[in-house]
Amino acid sequence: MTARTAAVFLDDGTAPDRGLRPRHDIDLPHRIALSAATRQGVGPHTEDVRAWLDERRRSHRFKVERIPFARLDNWSFDEGTGNLGHDSGRFFTVEGLRVVTSEGPHQEWHQPIIKQPEVGILGILAKEFDGVLHFLMQAKMEPGNPNLVQLSPTVQATRSNYTKVHKGGAVKYLEHFTHPDPDGIVADVLQSEHGSWFFRKSNRNMIVETSEEIPPDDDFCWLTLGQIGELLHADNVVNMDSRTVLSCAPYPDDQPGALHSDTELLSWFTVERSRHDIHSELLPLAGLPGWNRSESSIDHAEGLYFSVVAVRVQAESREVAGWTQPLFAPRGTGITAFLVRRFGGVPHVLVHARVEGGFLDTVELGPTVQCTPAVHAHLPSMDRPPFLDYVLDAPRSTPSRIRYEAVHSEEGGRFLKAESRYFIIEADEASAPLVPPSGYRWVTPEQLTSLVRHNHYVNVQARTLLACLNASGIRG
Amino acid sequence: MTARTAAVFLDDGTAPDRGLRPRHDIDLPHRIALSAATRQGVGPHTEDVRAWLDERRRSHRFKVERIPFARLDNWSFDEGTGNLGHDSGRFFTVEGLRVVTSEGPHQEWHQPIIKQPEVGILGILAKEFDGVLHFLMQAKMEPGNPNLVQLSPTVQATRSNYTKVHKGGAVKYLEHFTHPDPDGIVADVLQSEHGSWFFRKSNRNMIVETSEEIPPDDDFCWLTLGQIGELLHADNVVNMDSRTVLSCAPYPDDQPGALHSDTELLSWFTVERSRHDIHSELLPLAGLPGWNRSESSIDHAEGLYFSVVAVRVQAESREVAGWTQPLFAPRGTGITAFLVRRFGGVPHVLVHARVEGGFLDTVELGPTVQCTPAVHAHLPSMDRPPFLDYVLDAPRSTPSRIRYEAVHSEEGGRFLKAESRYFIIEADEASAPLVPPSGYRWVTPEQLTSLVRHNHYVNVQARTLLACLNASGIRG
Repeated sequence: MTARTAAVFLDDGTAPDRGLRPRHDIDLPHRIALSAATRQGVGPHTEDVRAWLDERRRSHRFKVERIPFARLDNWSFDEGTGNLGHDSGRFFTVEGLRVVTSEGPHQEWHQPIIKQPEVGILGILAKEFDGVLHFLMQAKMEPGNPNLVQLSPTVQATRSNYTKVHKGGAVKYLEHFTHPDPDGIVADVLQSEHGSWFFRKSNRNMIVETSEEIPPDDDFCWLTLGQIGELLHADNVVNMDSRTVLSCAPYPDDQPGALHSDTELLSWFTVERSRHDIHSELLPLAGLPGWNRSESSIDHAEGLYFSVVAVRVQAESREVAGWTQPLFAPRGTGITAFLVRRFGGVPHVLVHARVEGGFLDTVELGPTVQCTPAVHAHLPSMDRPPFLDYVLDAPRSTPSRIRYEAVHSEEGGRFLKAESRYFIIEADEASAPLVPPSGYRWVTPEQLTSLVRHNHYVNVQARTLLACLNASGIRG
Repeated sequence: MTARTAAVFLDDGTAPDRGLRPRHDIDLPHRIALSAATRQGVGPHTEDVRAWLDERRRSHRFKVERIPFARLDNWSFDEGTGNLGHDSGRFFTVEGLRVVTSEGPHQEWHQPIIKQPEVGILGILAKEFDGVLHFLMQAKMEPGNPNLVQLSPTVQATRSNYTKVHKGGAVKYLEHFTHPDPDGIVADVLQSEHGSWFFRKSNRNMIVETSEEIPPDDDFCWLTLGQIGELLHADNVVNMDSRTVLSCAPYPDDQPGALHSDTELLSWFTVERSRHDIHSELLPLAGLPGWNRSESSIDHAEGLYFSVVAVRVQAESREVAGWTQPLFAPRGTGITAFLVRRFGGVPHVLVHARVEGGFLDTVELGPTVQCTPAVHAHLPSMDRPPFLDYVLDAPRSTPSRIRYEAVHSEEGGRFLKAESRYFIIEADEASAPLVPPSGYRWVTPEQLTSLVRHNHYVNVQARTLLACLNASGIRG
């Protein structure tokens, strides 16, 4: 095309201060794949990482306790709306939400929801050692984590963090993400958080490579993707923020075939976004139908879904020495699963175009199954989520088909022990047909990887499963 | 990867009812390019198209007249909110909007806005004749078009259209878009409409290729992209819906270099989406600050921006024989321009990450200049839009740099004579530097073409300019 356009556009001879860049970094996917294939790096042995996390936990003497709302510092219920917020107006608020939709067993509901309009940064710093990419992972305490300390991104920063509303210490390594080397950006994309608990919340998911010397720190270590992949097989080791950032890594896209072309997949997604009528509106938390507030929790009248609670946190490693905050505490352990099949020799996962009340735009692609079984136990079988029974039965009836299983918790800064059992399970025509129900579609992991370069295609639970597929050695 | 995964996933032998598909159609971009290079097809000669539009206009005896609001049929102002809506609750409503943002000369404003939550279909049917793709274009009347009849997509259908709220005739050729051949989908993506006039409005932009026999119709003709490109040089011939659909055509992406890699461009876009604080909320139209309602219009107190008016339409070719409706009538002709430069021999256009109050998600990429000069005439020069003066002066001071110039009107079903003068103008380091102001970035047409495959990256005005770049022979 250069030749054709040469006659048309002026070239005024201005030399760019750096040359033109290749639009696509052809080496990067192979470097990602090499890191994923490397099970020992320059940092700790994989089998020592959990002991290191235990050691960090002990050395910081963390303590988290439930408290009544009245003992929250600087958090209070607004007199008019009953919304729960911080006196500074920052961080987040807990408000009411009403959702009306046109499908499913529940076509209208009310619920508390977290509103946090600012965009945070979840960032992992990468650096090559001995020719292999390593990722700087942090031993970080979050009060809602079942075991408090998990393997976290280099940086988890809300805008309040880096504009210093905390009045605490600076966030370590933050400058690599607020002022990245343009040639070092591996991934940088806005992704949604839980649409059932957050109102239109997005975070920047960033991976940035550096060639600078990075000063060591007791709370950080360098791991290869292969090591992190192994750790993803353990319960509650790799935190949610790490999982979602890792899902955005540009793994090789070397599989040219699929049941549906990329254009056909995008068309199906467009139909799914268009066909759902969903209306969500924020309401005052006070008087929200079906929810009751007591001294120390806000609960659903039938004891379902989740409660809003408050905790006091004491710790020494955090940006501030201690604090209090509200958390959402889900009832019961969730089930999150991809069913997988090969068609024509090519692996596919079954995604579900999910409506969640807090999504910015109607639907995102979720796992085949994403639910809390306890919530659905009372429903007639036709209203139970498709494929749930297959997943629940798999440990007994088809254990050899379970390719991946681990318990992970969701963001411990907002959710108290919000655990889900994540599965990747093989299926067959009888359990998951080639032509799936409306709203479901078979896609390849490569197609999902191409979609997570962009905003709001893949929800946070499916991103965890994609990270497991890509990094845990299941795919290759 | 097949070899690597073969050991892991079951292949249960189920034969897909059709084979695996290539994820990317390698021939299609070349077929698009061939059509763009073809200036005579099986349909009318290009120079006869305008006469054909004139003939259709005359044969249907269209008549559009302004009326007072009181003479609208089945449209009325709600007694409580003052919102203007249809008695059926369908079509659209005119409501109030309050926008608060953190930048620019106006940090808070109120305005009427069109709320139309349903997703419509804008679709162009494609078919190969003599080895060249042709596109089925319609001579369609829209009451707001300055010349009433323009060249329109095969189908423009609101959901009201195809669920028959109109109670009129069926939309011709609609079934090709509601039930497309999966292998014939050329493009299918949700794109935003005008963020200054619509509240979070998206339409499906579809191009679908068929091999079926298509019955001829007096209001339709087959044109090549090259013919449509020539017609894009004429004022008010190719309507907005055609322009936005055509911008989504997958032109060849054969330019591997750019000032910024695709990943860096996406990262910059992520920063722009993250850094803007914008809060938009719908309000009752009644009592909207700064706006006054009279018998036949709603106007800004200082006579700026636009008015809301009502029209009566009489026509015979439309799905229904006659109707009344509100329209937005902008004040003054807009200016919409891309500045273009070559760097290292590669053409780039200067995009602007624009905040518009009605966007679903803070910013989209807009033209270098997009404004109504009359609105800014009273502002001090530092508050005037960057690059506006260069564009306004170009016809006098640098006419040889104007690569493209034509007047186009926006969607004639909602906007009354909403004309903008569209420009593509060469620039140099003095007029548009390599390092542009914050919020602006040089990108290649190929990069924009890759972004319009996805939702909400490129705004409707920039899509018109992209269609002109791609189809009108300017790029190549």
